Amino acid sequence: MLLNRLGEFGLIKRIRKSIKYYDPSVIKGTGDDCAVLALDKNNYQLFTCDMLVEGVDFRHNEDPYLIGRKSLAVSISDIASCGGSPRYCLVSLSVTKKTSVAFADKFLRGMLDLAKKFKINIVGGDLTRSSQLAIDVSMLGSVEKKNLVLRSGAKNNDIIFVTGSLGGSISGKHLRFTPRVKEARFLVENFKINAMIDISDGLLQDLGHILEESGVGATVYEELIPLSKQAKNLKDALYSGEDFELLFTASPAEAKKILKLKPGISRPIGEITNAQGLRLIDKRGRQDLIKHKGFTHF
Amino acid sequence: MLLNRLGEFGLIKRIRKSIKYYDPSVIKGTGDDCAVLALDKNNYQLFTCDMLVEGVDFRHNEDPYLIGRKSLAVSISDIASCGGSPRYCLVSLSVTKKTSVAFADKFLRGMLDLAKKFKINIVGGDLTRSSQLAIDVSMLGSVEKKNLVLRSGAKNNDIIFVTGSLGGSISGKHLRFTPRVKEARFLVENFKINAMIDISDGLLQDLGHILEESGVGATVYEELIPLSKQAKNLKDALYSGEDFELLFTASPAEAKKILKLKPGISRPIGEITNAQGLRLIDKRGRQDLIKHKGFTHF
Repeated sequence: MLLNRLGEFGLIKRIRKSIKYYDPSVIKGTGDDCAVLALDKNNYQLFTCDMLVEGVDFRHNEDPYLIGRKSLAVSISDIASCGGSPRYCLVSLSVTKKTSVAFADKFLRGMLDLAKKFKINIVGGDLTRSSQLAIDVSMLGSVEKKNLVLRSGAKNNDIIFVTGSLGGSISGKHLRFTPRVKEARFLVENFKINAMIDISDGLLQDLGHILEESGVGATVYEELIPLSKQAKNLKDALYSGEDFELLFTASPAEAKKILKLKPGISRPIGEITNAQGLRLIDKRGRQDLIKHKGFTHF
Repeated sequence: MLLNRLGEFGLIKRIRKSIKYYDPSVIKGTGDDCAVLALDKNNYQLFTCDMLVEGVDFRHNEDPYLIGRKSLAVSISDIASCGGSPRYCLVSLSVTKKTSVAFADKFLRGMLDLAKKFKINIVGGDLTRSSQLAIDVSMLGSVEKKNLVLRSGAKNNDIIFVTGSLGGSISGKHLRFTPRVKEARFLVENFKINAMIDISDGLLQDLGHILEESGVGATVYEELIPLSKQAKNLKDALYSGEDFELLFTASPAEAKKILKLKPGISRPIGEITNAQGLRLIDKRGRQDLIKHKGFTHF
């Protein structure tokens, strides 16, 4: 049986079942945007990795500066999703026979510029060769214990929020987005955020991850979903990946406080329910129980 | 200009020059087997990654169990080189259209078995697809501050040692080796080891890294080099990669103590000199000043 019959998330479930932890210092292993490890009295360490491959995550003729930038940005976004600050990373890079020095220089410049912006220390890496350009960035961050947010904390009646706007990322945003570290840190420092994830595989699929890990359902209102200028239509905003916006939930009391902020940081799009499943309400009030789906790699 | 004209180590130098650290918690960034980060009063954290690609690090028809095993083993070996213990890792895996569920299961089993042996927590990862199987493992370990060993600590008159025997790894050892964690821990806990590296690119090339980082030279005696049964000849032991044995140096006084151990753990092969360069002495006493070289990826 080929892996594509099992699917990406089928394989992930299979892996998660067979993994054992040998140490109570593993606060959260697989199943979230980052692994969470014991660090010191007040802080956890966050640990995450993301692999980008030519033809999947970027085109082969893409600006190398933007490829380098994105390689770092996706992992920074994972650290932000857990409420943390990025600190160190390693870069594994597989180049092809045709890769030029000019490409490597621009790629590196894209990485270094984003690393500088977030004060991230690129402390090492590995170089190899293959027939397709591939980059894997592994990143360490830290978060105060009280500010850690996981996918699993959503509660009945929580309000669901997103930052920014959604859809059409493929037209360029996926290469140019600024990871929402500032926004995530502002949220966790000022409010009680119950669950959070970054939207990498599409709004509905990533909301699905929160629902699954939290054991809850959700109702989402189509007319509340903030469409980006690049979004082709609502479907694009619901299903397409790589928006890298934050999706989070907070209790109604906390939500009231968040809503008092000047607009722009985040908008409510629905609520968490005890009833399982994801219900999408259209503009006429019609309800559709949908299977959450979005981008998968295989 | 294509990257292969600059070469793997040329590119590494170029990258190292342009990287900045924003934080005194970076004890050692690029340029060693692991990055070294501040952890707590008595310990450092070690952080390393290794990318393995089909056709470079293993054949496409290789036993998936051994591919999984090796993916973890090479990073464990890096942690051992710094004197540390491996603790956590992430696994990025890029599969092809033809990858089967059976392959994934065996691959995972190879990883899990080695993780169990060393009590390493596999705390997450990333899945994607490409035309060539690729695996990147990033690993965290820890080491007592007093036991940290880097490439840069070799001193004039140090004796150079290797563990095990060298050469012929391509016939199978590169897939089946047990990383020298036990041996490295024994060495750092009982002796003052000045410099250490694991032999991944060939004895002379990896010794060259120690010399370069330490600003010293070395004399190596051909007749002292322990050849493995699989080694074709001396050249094979000197230049071919993936032995994953430890190469380390210690002062003559410490070396005497190490030599009193029951044989088998490590053997002396030469000494560190103030004179720059790497001199190889053959069985007739003839001296050859060699350019250190070995495996490079491009």
